[in-house]
Amino acid sequence: MNFASDNWAGVTEQVSQSLADAAGGLEPAYGGDRLTRSVTETFSRIFETDTAVYFTGTGSAANSLALSAFMKPSGVILCHRDSHVFADECGAPEFLTNGAKLLPLEGRDTKLDPDNVAAMLAKYGPANTRGGRAVAISITQLTESGTAYEPDRISILGAHARAAGVGYHMDGARFANALVTLGCTPAEMTWKAGVDVLSFGATKNGCWCAEAIVFFDPAKAEAFDYYRARSGHRFSKGRFIAAQFQGYFRDDHWLDTARHANRMAASLYEGLGNARNARPAWRCDGNEVFAVMTRDRAAAMMAAGAMFHEWPVGYESLDEPLADGEAVYRLVASFATESKDVDRFLMSLDASL
Amino acid sequence: MNFASDNWAGVTEQVSQSLADAAGGLEPAYGGDRLTRSVTETFSRIFETDTAVYFTGTGSAANSLALSAFMKPSGVILCHRDSHVFADECGAPEFLTNGAKLLPLEGRDTKLDPDNVAAMLAKYGPANTRGGRAVAISITQLTESGTAYEPDRISILGAHARAAGVGYHMDGARFANALVTLGCTPAEMTWKAGVDVLSFGATKNGCWCAEAIVFFDPAKAEAFDYYRARSGHRFSKGRFIAAQFQGYFRDDHWLDTARHANRMAASLYEGLGNARNARPAWRCDGNEVFAVMTRDRAAAMMAAGAMFHEWPVGYESLDEPLADGEAVYRLVASFATESKDVDRFLMSLDASL
Amino acid sequence: MNFASDNWAGVTEQVSQSLADAAGGLEPAYGGDRLTRSVTETFSRIFETDTAVYFTGTGSAANSLALSAFMKPSGVILCHRDSHVFADECGAPEFLTNGAKLLPLEGRDTKLDPDNVAAMLAKYGPANTRGGRAVAISITQLTESGTAYEPDRISILGAHARAAGVGYHMDGARFANALVTLGCTPAEMTWKAGVDVLSFGATKNGCWCAEAIVFFDPAKAEAFDYYRARSGHRFSKGRFIAAQFQGYFRDDHWLDTARHANRMAASLYEGLGNARNARPAWRCDGNEVFAVMTRDRAAAMMAAGAMFHEWPVGYESLDEPLADGEAVYRLVASFATESKDVDRFLMSLDASL
Amino acid sequence: MNFASDNWAGVTEQVSQSLADAAGGLEPAYGGDRLTRSVTETFSRIFETDTAVYFTGTGSAANSLALSAFMKPSGVILCHRDSHVFADECGAPEFLTNGAKLLPLEGRDTKLDPDNVAAMLAKYGPANTRGGRAVAISITQLTESGTAYEPDRISILGAHARAAGVGYHMDGARFANALVTLGCTPAEMTWKAGVDVLSFGATKNGCWCAEAIVFFDPAKAEAFDYYRARSGHRFSKGRFIAAQFQGYFRDDHWLDTARHANRMAASLYEGLGNARNARPAWRCDGNEVFAVMTRDRAAAMMAAGAMFHEWPVGYESLDEPLADGEAVYRLVASFATESKDVDRFLMSLDASL
Repeated sequence: MNFASDNWAGVTEQVSQSLADAAGGLEPAYGGDRLTRSVTETFSRIFETDTAVYFTGTGSAANSLALSAFMKPSGVILCHRDSHVFADECGAPEFLTNGAKLLPLEGRDTKLDPDNVAAMLAKYGPANTRGGRAVAISITQLTESGTAYEPDRISILGAHARAAGVGYHMDGARFANALVTLGCTPAEMTWKAGVDVLSFGATKNGCWCAEAIVFFDPAKAEAFDYYRARSGHRFSKGRFIAAQFQGYFRDDHWLDTARHANRMAASLYEGLGNARNARPAWRCDGNEVFAVMTRDRAAAMMAAGAMFHEWPVGYESLDEPLADGEAVYRLVASFATESKDVDRFLMSLDASL
Repeated sequence: MNFASDNWAGVTEQVSQSLADAAGGLEPAYGGDRLTRSVTETFSRIFETDTAVYFTGTGSAANSLALSAFMKPSGVILCHRDSHVFADECGAPEFLTNGAKLLPLEGRDTKLDPDNVAAMLAKYGPANTRGGRAVAISITQLTESGTAYEPDRISILGAHARAAGVGYHMDGARFANALVTLGCTPAEMTWKAGVDVLSFGATKNGCWCAEAIVFFDPAKAEAFDYYRARSGHRFSKGRFIAAQFQGYFRDDHWLDTARHANRMAASLYEGLGNARNARPAWRCDGNEVFAVMTRDRAAAMMAAGAMFHEWPVGYESLDEPLADGEAVYRLVASFATESKDVDRFLMSLDASL
Repeated sequence: MNFASDNWAGVTEQVSQSLADAAGGLEPAYGGDRLTRSVTETFSRIFETDTAVYFTGTGSAANSLALSAFMKPSGVILCHRDSHVFADECGAPEFLTNGAKLLPLEGRDTKLDPDNVAAMLAKYGPANTRGGRAVAISITQLTESGTAYEPDRISILGAHARAAGVGYHMDGARFANALVTLGCTPAEMTWKAGVDVLSFGATKNGCWCAEAIVFFDPAKAEAFDYYRARSGHRFSKGRFIAAQFQGYFRDDHWLDTARHANRMAASLYEGLGNARNARPAWRCDGNEVFAVMTRDRAAAMMAAGAMFHEWPVGYESLDEPLADGEAVYRLVASFATESKDVDRFLMSLDASL
Repeated sequence: MNFASDNWAGVTEQVSQSLADAAGGLEPAYGGDRLTRSVTETFSRIFETDTAVYFTGTGSAANSLALSAFMKPSGVILCHRDSHVFADECGAPEFLTNGAKLLPLEGRDTKLDPDNVAAMLAKYGPANTRGGRAVAISITQLTESGTAYEPDRISILGAHARAAGVGYHMDGARFANALVTLGCTPAEMTWKAGVDVLSFGATKNGCWCAEAIVFFDPAKAEAFDYYRARSGHRFSKGRFIAAQFQGYFRDDHWLDTARHANRMAASLYEGLGNARNARPAWRCDGNEVFAVMTRDRAAAMMAAGAMFHEWPVGYESLDEPLADGEAVYRLVASFATESKDVDRFLMSLDASL
C-alpha cells in the first residue's frame, strides 16, 4: 500500500536490462557515443520533428536549465503558484537562471488561466524597466494536482507566448501519464501547441535518472551545451542516460508503464468514489489520486501500513469543501504499483477505525 | 589500443550487478533510502572518522559544489592553472560559486607550490577589499599530468589553509589511483593532512555516475543540502548512486580496479622507456602516461587504430625538452584496459612509419 | 502642479551647499575620509546605538545589498506583493542575492499581515528542502500606498523574525516621512522593534544620491564591505555621499523637509476630501496622496498641466469601491512642493471639464 | 605632496558649479530629464558617431556592466593580470557577469600582447566546451602602470576581437589622460580601432561620480538598461550625473584638467630623472609616475609628509632592475596637483635622510 510517490519506485526490468547491456566497451565521453546519437534520433521520430535533445540527471536540472535558456536580464517567468518549479525545487530555477523572478499565479486545477497569463504578459512587457519583463511561461503536464492540461489550453497559452515573444516551457515530469490519458500525439501535446522546450521526464515512469531537455526549434538551443556544462549537469559517461531511454522507448515500453500506473490510479479513484471513509478530492487525469479523509482516518491508514502524504495544494479545485478535521491526501501510482495494493488500501479504508 | 580516457570505459561487472540488484522495490526518495544510509556509513569507516557525505552525478558538480560551500562574497580560490577546476569545467566552478575568482597558479608537475600558495594567501588576505580574499585552496589528486601529490605536500598546504582560515578542497577524480600508488590510508591522504572536503570520484574507476562530496567536519556541511538542491544536483532515486558505491566498495573492488589500471599504465610507461619512437614525458604515478612523440608518429599510431589525445599541459615537467616536431600525448588506462592493448601499442610504436 | 514623484525634485539648498563645501582638498578614497567617519557617528547618535553604516547611491542597491547580507542558499524573502523590492526594482533583489525567491504576500494597506507572515515562516522553515527556507522579512516604511506601519506591527513582525531566526529589513526610502508622522524616535521605529537592517533613504527627501545601509548589530555586517564591493556599489570619492548626509542632518534639516512634504500632502488630502470631482482613495500617512478620479477627469487635469501617475496598487484598501470609469492616482509631495501647487491643483479640479 | 591617487581629489570648480546649477526644479527621474538627453548628444558629438550612453556611479560598475553585456554562459574574458578588472575590483566583474572567468594574461608595460591574445582567442574558441569560450577582450587606457596603449595596438587587438566574434572593452578610467598624450581623437582611440564599449571615466579627472558606459553600436546595447537596473546601478535623480558631465565637457574643461595633471606628472618624471635618491621606473605616458626608491628613502619621504603608495605591478617594464632594498612607488597627479607639490617633493628627495 505504498502510494508515497512515483519516485519511490525503482526501475523497470527492461530499463535495468538496457543499462546492464551498455556496461561494457569503450565509448566517447560527454555525449559523443553511439547510443546517445541513436536515442537522440528516436526523440525526433517520436516528436515527428527535428529536435535538439540534451540529457541530464534530475528533473529540477531539466526545468531550471530549460528556463535558463530563455532568461534575459530582469526576466520574469510565469508559473502556477503550486507548480513544481515554484514550490518544490528549492530555488534551483531562481539560482540557475541568475535570479529570474518566478511569478506565482493562481488558477483552478493547478493550471494557468490563459486570460490571467495574457494580462501578466501585458504587465511585464518588453519595456517594463520597473517590474522586469516576461521571458517565459512554464506549465506542468500532469500538474501538481494530477490534472492534465487540455491540448486546447496548451495551444492558447502557446499563442499568448508567441504573441509576447516569450519562451514556452513544459515540465513533463509526468509527460507519459498525461499523454496516454489525452490520447493525443507527443507532437500535438507540445510543439504543435506552441511549446518551445520540454523537460521530458522518464525517471518517475520507470528509469532511474533519465531526463531530456527537448528543444523543438534547434536554433533556440544554440548555446545550450554551455548552460548544461557551466552548471555541472553534463555527464561524462552519458551513454548510460541514453541506455535508459533506449530501454524506455523500446516497443513502447514507456506508454505501457504509464498506462499501467494510470490504470492503478483509476481503480483507486473509482474505489474512493464508493468508499465510506474517504472521497476523491477532484478528478484524476493520470497516475495521481487526491483523496479527502479525516486526519484520524489518514493516521489509521498509515498505522495500517499505507504510505502517502498530505497535500496542501489545489484546494480551489475541491469538488466539495472540506469538513472539520478533513484534509487532502495524495496517492501516487507507478509502474510498480500492483492491483493488490489498491485492493488492500480500499479494503482497509472501509474497516472501522 | 584505446587510451583516450578512463571516462570512455563503461562500468565493471560488480558495479553493474549492484545497480541491477537495486532495481526493485519502493524506497524513500532524495536520499532517505536504506542503501544511501548504509553507504554513508561505509564512507565513515573507510575514512576512519565521522563524515558528512553527499552524492551527486558528475565530477564538475562535486568540485563546484564543494567549493561553493566555502565561498564568501569576493572570494578567491587558489588552484593550479592546469587543474580541472580551472581548465576543464567550462566555468562551472565560477558559476556555481556565484563568481569566485579562480586564481591560476603555476607549479611543476601540475602541483601547487606551497611557498607560492602561502604568498597568495598573504596577498588575498581577509582584509583585501581590492583584489578579494582567499576562501579556498583546491588541489587535484592525481593531478592533470598524472602525478600524485606527496602526503607531505598535502599536509604543508593544509597547514597553510588552516593558518589562513580558508577551506581546503581535494578533487579526487582519480583518488583511488593515487591511493594505491602512495600506499597510505584514505585518512592520511585527506583529513589527517588537513583536507576539509573531498570530491571522491568513482566514475572514472568503474562506476557510471558516482561522485561523493565528503566533508570531514560535518559542521562545515551544515547548509550543504541546500547548495546541492538549489543547483539541481539532488537525485530523486538517489539509491542508484548508493548502489554503485556499494558495488564499488565491496571486497575492496575499488582498490582492485585502480591497481589494475595503474599496472597497465606502469607497463606502458616501462615500454615507452625502451621504445625507439617515443619516450615518457615525465614520471607516471597512477593510470596516466604522458608520451613524447613526433606528430607524424602520433598520426601514424592513430591511423593504426590507437586512440589518445595530445595534451598541452605540464610542459614544465618534461624530463627533456621537446625537439622540433614533437608533442606530448596522454595515454590513460582504466579497469577496462587489457595487457594486449598495451602490447599492441608498444609493438606498433616500434614499427616503421 | 507637479506631483509625479519625490524623486523628480532636485536637492535642497542646504544639501547642495554641503556638497559644494566638500569639493576641495584631497581625502582618502573608498570611505577613508573624515566626513564619512563623522557622518557615520551621526548615524549612531540619531539611532541611539552602535551602528555599522555603509553608503551607496541608489535605493535599489541599498535594499538588494541589505537583503543579500541575509541570504543563504535556497533563501526565501517574505515581502508584500506591491512592495518596491518585489514590484519596482527590475529584479535587482533577485539578482544581487544570487536568486532569492521573493515571496509576494497580500495584506491590506500594502502592509504585511503578521499572522500570514508567521504562517509563511512556518512553511518555509529551516528544514524545508523543497520550497526553500525563509531568510528575511522585508517591509517598506512608508509603504507603496503611502501608509505607515504602526510601531506595534513593526514589533510583532520583529518578534516573528527573531523567533524564526531570519533577518528583518526595512526599506526606508521614505523613512523621514513616516517618522515625523508617527512621532516616535528613529530607534523606536527600527531596532527597538527588532529591525536588523535599514535602507535609510535620503534621496527622495532632499539629497541627490544618498542611501545608507544601517546595521543595528555591527556583527551582522561583518562581510558587508565585500557585498558592496563585489557589486560595484562602493564609491571612490565617498566623501560626497557623506557630504549630502552632513547637510541632510544638520539642524534637523531632514525632519523639516519631511514635515514640509507631509504638510503639503495633508493639505492636498484635506482638499480632496472636499473636492467635487475627486476623493481620497484611502488615508494619507505621509507625503503621498492617492486620489480617485474618473479617467476623463485625470486626463483633463494632466491637460491642464498637472503631473501625476495612475497607480494600480493597494486597491484592497479603498475606502469605497471604484465606480465605472474611475481609477486611482498617486500624488506625491516633496520638499520642493509649494502651497500654490496644491491650491492650483484643487482649484483646477473643481473646474468643469 | 599628496600623490596618493587621483581619486583623492575632490571636484573641480566648474563641475561643482554645474552640480549646483542643477539643484532646483523638478525633472523626470531615471534618465528621462533634459540634461541627460543633452549630455547624451554631447557624447555622440565628441565621438563623432551615434552612441548609446548609460550613466552610472562607479568605475567598477561601469566595467563590470559593460562586460556583462557581452557575457554568455561559460564566457571567458581576456585581460591583463594587473588590470583593474582583474586585480582591483573585488570580484565585481566575476559577480556581475554571473561568473565569467577572467583570464589573467601577462604582457610588458601592463598591456596585452596581441599575439598572446590571438593564441588565447584560438584556445577559447566558440566550441571549447571544456575551458569555456572567449566572450570579450578588456584593455585599460591608461594602463595600471601609467602607460598608454598605442592606437596601432588598439587596432590590432580590435581586429583580433572582430575576427573571433568577441566583444572589445576599454576601461577608460583615465581616458582623458591618455587622449591628450596620444594626441588622437576620441574616435580614433576607440571605435575606429574596433572598440565596442568604453567605460568613460570622469571621476578621477574632476568629477565626483560620473561614469558613462558608451556603446559605439547602439544595437549592442539593446538590453543594457536591464543590466544596469537589475544590479541597482540606475540612479533616480540621474540628472546629477548628467550635470557633472555637462560641466566636465563645457569649453573642453576635461581636456584642460587632464593636460594639467599630465604636465604635473611630466615635471615630476623629469625631476626624478635628475634626482639623486630616486629614479623613474619606466616611461610616463599620462598622470602617473612610477619611481624607484629604497624603502628607507620612501619611508623618509612619507615621514616628511609625502603621500604615495608602493606599487607591486609592472616590474617586467623596469628600465633597470631593482637593487636590494629598492621598491617601486606610484605617484599620481590630478587636476588638484600644484607645481609647488612637485617642487617640494623633488626637493625633499634630494635632502639627506
